[in-house]
Amino acid sequence: MKDDISISVIKRLPRYYRFLENLKNNGIVRISSKELAERMGLTASQIRHDFNCFGGFGQQGYGYNVPELYDKIGEILYVNKELKTILIGAGNLGKAVSSKIFQRKSGFRLIGVFDKNEALAGKIIRGLPVRHIDYLENFCRDNNPICAVICIPSNDMKELTDLLCRLGIRSFWNFSNYDIAMAHPEVLVENVHLTDSLMTLSYITETRLLDEAQEG
Amino acid sequence: MKDDISISVIKRLPRYYRFLENLKNNGIVRISSKELAERMGLTASQIRHDFNCFGGFGQQGYGYNVPELYDKIGEILYVNKELKTILIGAGNLGKAVSSKIFQRKSGFRLIGVFDKNEALAGKIIRGLPVRHIDYLENFCRDNNPICAVICIPSNDMKELTDLLCRLGIRSFWNFSNYDIAMAHPEVLVENVHLTDSLMTLSYITETRLLDEAQEG
Repeated sequence: MKDDISISVIKRLPRYYRFLENLKNNGIVRISSKELAERMGLTASQIRHDFNCFGGFGQQGYGYNVPELYDKIGEILYVNKELKTILIGAGNLGKAVSSKIFQRKSGFRLIGVFDKNEALAGKIIRGLPVRHIDYLENFCRDNNPICAVICIPSNDMKELTDLLCRLGIRSFWNFSNYDIAMAHPEVLVENVHLTDSLMTLSYITETRLLDEAQEG
Repeated sequence: MKDDISISVIKRLPRYYRFLENLKNNGIVRISSKELAERMGLTASQIRHDFNCFGGFGQQGYGYNVPELYDKIGEILYVNKELKTILIGAGNLGKAVSSKIFQRKSGFRLIGVFDKNEALAGKIIRGLPVRHIDYLENFCRDNNPICAVICIPSNDMKELTDLLCRLGIRSFWNFSNYDIAMAHPEVLVENVHLTDSLMTLSYITETRLLDEAQEG
């Protein structure tokens, strides 16, 4: 069954998880698919369809039990797993991103931090010493991380990606603009393109301001 | 014409811009829609459709002129504008994100940085002093920023968002999990949910590993 689940359903699961966490933290125990849909800007039938992909979690006429649904979606997202993960790049972005891994159960466990800047070597991030990138190869051979978080500029990425794939990294959380999936179709990549997001905001803001100027 | 452009087309524009920048930096002057499509994982007809939303940029049988197309898409995205922008939150995420605004023409200009942590007051980020959040109101009245970048946790967000909207902020680049658009449907919001992205990676990685374990 899981093979048929579309990427758009999968991408909505963390959103459900986030909304349910919020409801749970506010002491809400039960919610109808209609009310959940309204809060999330979806339709009730879309929510029922999404949940049915995983067997369905509600009872007709009763609604969803919030803490139960939260736990179930967490299980589906494997939040209790601890995939061994390394961080490449110990600058501001790397530090900010590492806190996301530690914020709550995320499915990942950070085991090593690397940077090519020698001035950062030995500094501590989330209890881990920053290691010089030259130690990456030995570290991976000894510790077998599965996932790499990439917080460095694109220009160093080709050689590094080839090395990481050779060392057994299977999935990437990629904040660089380097197209890892194009070079290595065998690995899994989740890209975060912050500048794309900023430019979308530029477009929608400027067009709104222009519309208003024309109307006014 | 612009009113009819769907959000999915708009969201692809920054991607085109990024790919074209890369081509331009590699000295490539001309590209067919077929080749651009292959590099971007789209179809040639999708690309032609997207560009036709803005009047079309190519010549039949000739392909696109890369630097020209890059400049045109940049114009559509208003990258040469300098929307007055403030940053709320001067921690690692705020520092990392502010560098995106400065990296190249982004459409925005950072004019103020605020944090409630008094220990950060007076530190310099991108040439700007970090101001205590108590000075936010006066600063906005004097300088009229249009956009706010939110790099603080959700729990402080309700009061702050109400204040920022009252002070004339029209668009938000939101890294918190607070649902600004729900509380203020009149403003524009571009959300970045880093934890959603991480959880998607958790799901796809774990299901791949499980599939392999079952097959192997």
